[in-house]
Amino acid sequence: MSKDAPRSNKEQNSVFVGRRPTMNYVMATMMILNTGEDCTVKARGRAISHAVDVCEILRNRFLKGTEYKDIRLSTEQLEGENGQSNNVSSIEIVLAPPI
Amino acid sequence: MSKDAPRSNKEQNSVFVGRRPTMNYVMATMMILNTGEDCTVKARGRAISHAVDVCEILRNRFLKGTEYKDIRLSTEQLEGENGQSNNVSSIEIVLAPPI
Repeated sequence: MSKDAPRSNKEQNSVFVGRRPTMNYVMATMMILNTGEDCTVKARGRAISHAVDVCEILRNRFLKGTEYKDIRLSTEQLEGENGQSNNVSSIEIVLAPPI
Repeated sequence: MSKDAPRSNKEQNSVFVGRRPTMNYVMATMMILNTGEDCTVKARGRAISHAVDVCEILRNRFLKGTEYKDIRLSTEQLEGENGQSNNVSSIEIVLAPPI
């Protein structure tokens, strides 16, 4: 992580779930939690289910004892290609590392 | 609701989101919240994203002031057709009606 371009601490500690394989996100999340800091798993639209899978696999198989600290649901407005805006649901799952 | 077969109060106050149109679930949820009681929106697997949409549409368009009282994520074991069990993520979103 130290070689990355500087990012805000909050952004650094979040994983944005998209279309890559689930295990990629599980590993990225685990690396952050292993530093002892909270990690926020974020997703929009259909990837929300995927984000839940990432967290559940992590908690059940890799880092048992990881806690859900906060789960936030919201709606974001995205600009469509044709200029109109679309509403899309989003989730932010804050994970706290096992003690 | 009074004509339904008797169900436990907890089950009566929950909506299980599947593949029907989003608005069906929004309306079912709104009917329960309008009685003044909490409503639990549940979903498994890919329908999790759908359940979040249902809650967000309800909160933003229909019953403004509806609060997220609790959001629980878990994993359920489902029996596959070939006898092996599959893990599937699930969500339970507890909504409290506006005061």
